[in-house]
Amino acid sequence: MKTQSRISAGSYRSQGFIARYQKLIKDTVIPYQYSVLCDEAPDTEKSHVVQNFINAGRAVRGEDTGDGFYGMVFQDSDAAKWIEAAAFSLIAFPDQELEAQVDRLIDRIAAAQDTDGYLNTYFTIKDKEKRWTNLLEGHELYCSGHMMEAACAYYKATGKDKLLRVMERNAEHIYDRFITKGQAGYPGHPEVELALMKLYRTTGNQHCLELAEHFINVRGVDADFYKKEKEMRSWTVWGNNAEDNNYQQSGMPVRKMHTAGGHAVRAVYLYTAMADLASETGDTELYAACCRLWESITRKQMYITGGIGSTVHGEAFSVDYDLPPDTAYAETCASIGLMFFASRMLENDINGEYADVMEQAFYNTVLAGMQLDGKRFFYVNPLEVVPGISGISPTHRHDLPERPGWYACACCPPNAARLISSFGEYAYGADADTAYCHMFAAGTVSFENGMKLNCETEYPYGFTVTYRVVEGGGWLAVRIPRWSRHFSLSVNGADHVLAPEKGYVRIPVSDGDTVQLILDDTPRFIYASSKVPALTGCTALCRGPLVYCFEGADNDGDVLSIRLRRNGNITISAGTQAPLCNVVRLHAEAVRIGQQDALYTDVPPVYMPYTATAVPYYTWGNRGENQMRVWINEIL
Amino acid sequence: MKTQSRISAGSYRSQGFIARYQKLIKDTVIPYQYSVLCDEAPDTEKSHVVQNFINAGRAVRGEDTGDGFYGMVFQDSDAAKWIEAAAFSLIAFPDQELEAQVDRLIDRIAAAQDTDGYLNTYFTIKDKEKRWTNLLEGHELYCSGHMMEAACAYYKATGKDKLLRVMERNAEHIYDRFITKGQAGYPGHPEVELALMKLYRTTGNQHCLELAEHFINVRGVDADFYKKEKEMRSWTVWGNNAEDNNYQQSGMPVRKMHTAGGHAVRAVYLYTAMADLASETGDTELYAACCRLWESITRKQMYITGGIGSTVHGEAFSVDYDLPPDTAYAETCASIGLMFFASRMLENDINGEYADVMEQAFYNTVLAGMQLDGKRFFYVNPLEVVPGISGISPTHRHDLPERPGWYACACCPPNAARLISSFGEYAYGADADTAYCHMFAAGTVSFENGMKLNCETEYPYGFTVTYRVVEGGGWLAVRIPRWSRHFSLSVNGADHVLAPEKGYVRIPVSDGDTVQLILDDTPRFIYASSKVPALTGCTALCRGPLVYCFEGADNDGDVLSIRLRRNGNITISAGTQAPLCNVVRLHAEAVRIGQQDALYTDVPPVYMPYTATAVPYYTWGNRGENQMRVWINEIL
Repeated sequence: MKTQSRISAGSYRSQGFIARYQKLIKDTVIPYQYSVLCDEAPDTEKSHVVQNFINAGRAVRGEDTGDGFYGMVFQDSDAAKWIEAAAFSLIAFPDQELEAQVDRLIDRIAAAQDTDGYLNTYFTIKDKEKRWTNLLEGHELYCSGHMMEAACAYYKATGKDKLLRVMERNAEHIYDRFITKGQAGYPGHPEVELALMKLYRTTGNQHCLELAEHFINVRGVDADFYKKEKEMRSWTVWGNNAEDNNYQQSGMPVRKMHTAGGHAVRAVYLYTAMADLASETGDTELYAACCRLWESITRKQMYITGGIGSTVHGEAFSVDYDLPPDTAYAETCASIGLMFFASRMLENDINGEYADVMEQAFYNTVLAGMQLDGKRFFYVNPLEVVPGISGISPTHRHDLPERPGWYACACCPPNAARLISSFGEYAYGADADTAYCHMFAAGTVSFENGMKLNCETEYPYGFTVTYRVVEGGGWLAVRIPRWSRHFSLSVNGADHVLAPEKGYVRIPVSDGDTVQLILDDTPRFIYASSKVPALTGCTALCRGPLVYCFEGADNDGDVLSIRLRRNGNITISAGTQAPLCNVVRLHAEAVRIGQQDALYTDVPPVYMPYTATAVPYYTWGNRGENQMRVWINEIL
Repeated sequence: MKTQSRISAGSYRSQGFIARYQKLIKDTVIPYQYSVLCDEAPDTEKSHVVQNFINAGRAVRGEDTGDGFYGMVFQDSDAAKWIEAAAFSLIAFPDQELEAQVDRLIDRIAAAQDTDGYLNTYFTIKDKEKRWTNLLEGHELYCSGHMMEAACAYYKATGKDKLLRVMERNAEHIYDRFITKGQAGYPGHPEVELALMKLYRTTGNQHCLELAEHFINVRGVDADFYKKEKEMRSWTVWGNNAEDNNYQQSGMPVRKMHTAGGHAVRAVYLYTAMADLASETGDTELYAACCRLWESITRKQMYITGGIGSTVHGEAFSVDYDLPPDTAYAETCASIGLMFFASRMLENDINGEYADVMEQAFYNTVLAGMQLDGKRFFYVNPLEVVPGISGISPTHRHDLPERPGWYACACCPPNAARLISSFGEYAYGADADTAYCHMFAAGTVSFENGMKLNCETEYPYGFTVTYRVVEGGGWLAVRIPRWSRHFSLSVNGADHVLAPEKGYVRIPVSDGDTVQLILDDTPRFIYASSKVPALTGCTALCRGPLVYCFEGADNDGDVLSIRLRRNGNITISAGTQAPLCNVVRLHAEAVRIGQQDALYTDVPPVYMPYTATAVPYYTWGNRGENQMRVWINEIL
């Protein structure tokens, strides 16, 4: 059993860039999402989430269920993700009113739990008889999983265990059903497995570990399970194809898997649990499968922004090297799930590769998912939009040039909220004698091993990171990102020459020590493998962890006619205009080709010198509908 | 009434390139397609086409219909297109056996006509009561239209009028239904309109003209027509969306149309009939709409190959400048329809622009639709394929790297066969005193105005075209293609300096005169407008009317890593290996970037000198599955 990089409870209080984001979540996203759950948000379709719990409570007590159930079959999970976001937010920003809101919601949830431990408003209100008859589409285990995660987070934040006990009872109900009574099957949408691992670690309840392992082990062993299940039932939610084993990761036992495929969120949630279980049990066969799947994603199927699941068809992985920028799906939730997977891979092996990807996904796709004011969200994260085509053409209808408001299917906004609020869980880790700094996050962090660390940095815009040991001592393991072509390190002011091992430098530290890291702040031109047809002849601009993009707003309304000069000069400026204040812009030597009215011509385009301006990808689409491109044609 | 460029009956006997293609159609395609119609083709799904006519004949006579109807609702049209192809082939290559086959099939068809003139095997066999109740999906008028075209062609080829009389009776039946009895509505798939124009010109029957005009005039006037029709009927063929007015060109009266949209084949068949009617009646409002639609297609929605209808979703036009090479639909039939439209625009206005596009569509997309041996066919004509992605990825599933065999929905192969067989109809035209040479086609052509011309050329590989007036005299109007940056002209050996007017030079000629035209044979680099996002930074190579492409077979298996040198040297060679014998290849100065395993790197790719070899686009996919690209990244 390895737990080397797992962070302990209640430990990271952010400053700087992360604090500003966490504050935005606290001040804007969490209150807004609460009003949505309560159907009190203006100009927003009703979610009925809280009312579903109230009505389910009535059903449990045998009362009239009022206006019944409304929403998606997985509507309960919105409440769970909100509680999780609120819980992590409470760690950073104690707030009695918010805590009281959470407590009231937990009371509603607890009241909606059936006497046998079952908890799901859709089935409790609509039809108890249909429970557990449609694992493919029913999302009962998915909703339980999210509520288990919420319970663990809220217990960690407040020490209050009401929801934790509710969910432990729920886990026992599921155990009884699938282990004691031996019902066949596994969740159509993986999630409960990783949640059960958390619940096991929080409560120590072995049944949770056993159940997580069970669902992972039985998955895909009977590749016809969903087909048989469908033949046994007379109802459906969406008419999902029970034989699409690729979509639902059910075609083979997980230990045989080698290529990431199917619905991207489902896939990475599953892989996360697999990696989590492998680190817990030392299952080398399972771990080997995780390594293969990791490579399949990150070496052949991942956008430069850490986006995954390139096709809208099934919100899914496509095939290797099929990474079109303009028709990308790249769901926000899938990149959040990729961060989960990366964090669990780090539990198995402290290797900077995992943290590199975690950071790539966070600073680009995950942050891009949210408007800078926290009020609107992208579900889909293209790497190119062209108004007139994007959002309109039949093949680009999902690629919107601006963030829409709250979706009827609202998985991404609360997922982003809980991820950002819990950033410390991913940035830091510890084992008995080492503090791990996987990502650079200003603030104070207390580790389970007794070390307490202060981190100062303007990252991702500043490249100096200063750690001060405030309490305790041992080893400080700091990741050196692969993108940093050079770095310098000093300990208490003295230069320290150290080669990173698997992406980390390890420094012995004591109370009061200061470790300063200076990373490479040079903008970089990035090239994709020529095996990616959609990106040949192009380059992308990056600085630190940030992928940059070119928007019409900064480039005379036209980015399609820009060509970047290879190794051209790049200057830097800080944005001064809202909403991109304090955002570092890059100005790159480029040319612009002359406008041409003819669709085709034999006159080569004339190149005119031009300075093209790029902004971080996560800030795109905040200034109205305009062209945007990450990958730009290169000239010598 | 203008008929200046219409060719008269029985007049073009091909030689050279066109003759080789027409021979291939005669020797391979027509016999094979006949065996398919008769369900005698080995390893091919049964078509049941002939059997449907036999069974419908039994239904008409009140006998048992045997094994009933089988196939698509428009299955009859396969027979019609085959007859048309056979008819034009008989003009070039008299063949008693083929003529007997056609006669026998016509007997079957005539026997399947109901006593009231109705002719359609689907409805006659399956349910007479459903006739004319589903114009949206039923394809009754579509099938009638194709059979009318077949009737005209066979009459032209042989003087036999049995089918012509059958179809005139059928036209009278339709006239009775839609004019005399006043049934509302118009065809879901336009085709009968252009066919009625042909039938009118062949028979002089005014009802045909009146009916064509009627269907054109009522179209889209009631934009809710299909919706109302759907509400009146209790059955459907495919469940087409009756409210998708864009798909079925029913949202507005045709004279108001300004943007080409919807199902591309339906669209261009409609526009063809509109232009045809405008030239017949002098309807300037209708002609103006045709001009707008022509510009919408050719200036904003057409591939360089003359492919149209860029999206698989609805086999349809997308939005302006949305012309992705890799996910292109670009149906073969749509480019055939574009040739029809271009030919009818030429009837209104002798302008080289129309002939340029007609030629572009023919030599690239239409010819690419057929394997070089005439045995397999593309329905979809992408401008890029990458094995591993094309045909596999959910967004590229329709873009196959190799031609499949006969389709269950077999519209394209017989359409290509009839188009190639009737090439002379598009290449040549005439009015009272002028012979028009719209496309360069070796052979002998007799014009209605009494002129007879011999044309010698190795076009599209040779660029000298020699016309000899064999009989008669008057004006010879020869198109100077827009792609030919210069040309020289001699009359009876003496240089003749003449500036083309609207793309044509006009030379007075007498019996025995020789006119020689030498066109520009220089390969050209073509650039797309920067408004086409998918093509920025790229160039395409063309020579004469041929668009070239780069295939793995000639380029070490990898075309993705090739970059073409701007204005680089290009050499020419003739292919010597089957199946590309006598095909001119272009060898272009290029670089190849080094292979790179990493998905992303900050190391700029190294350029290594390379000579890239291109072959004509129409020959692609004849040497097994391999990469293919038309548009290649350019370097300076």
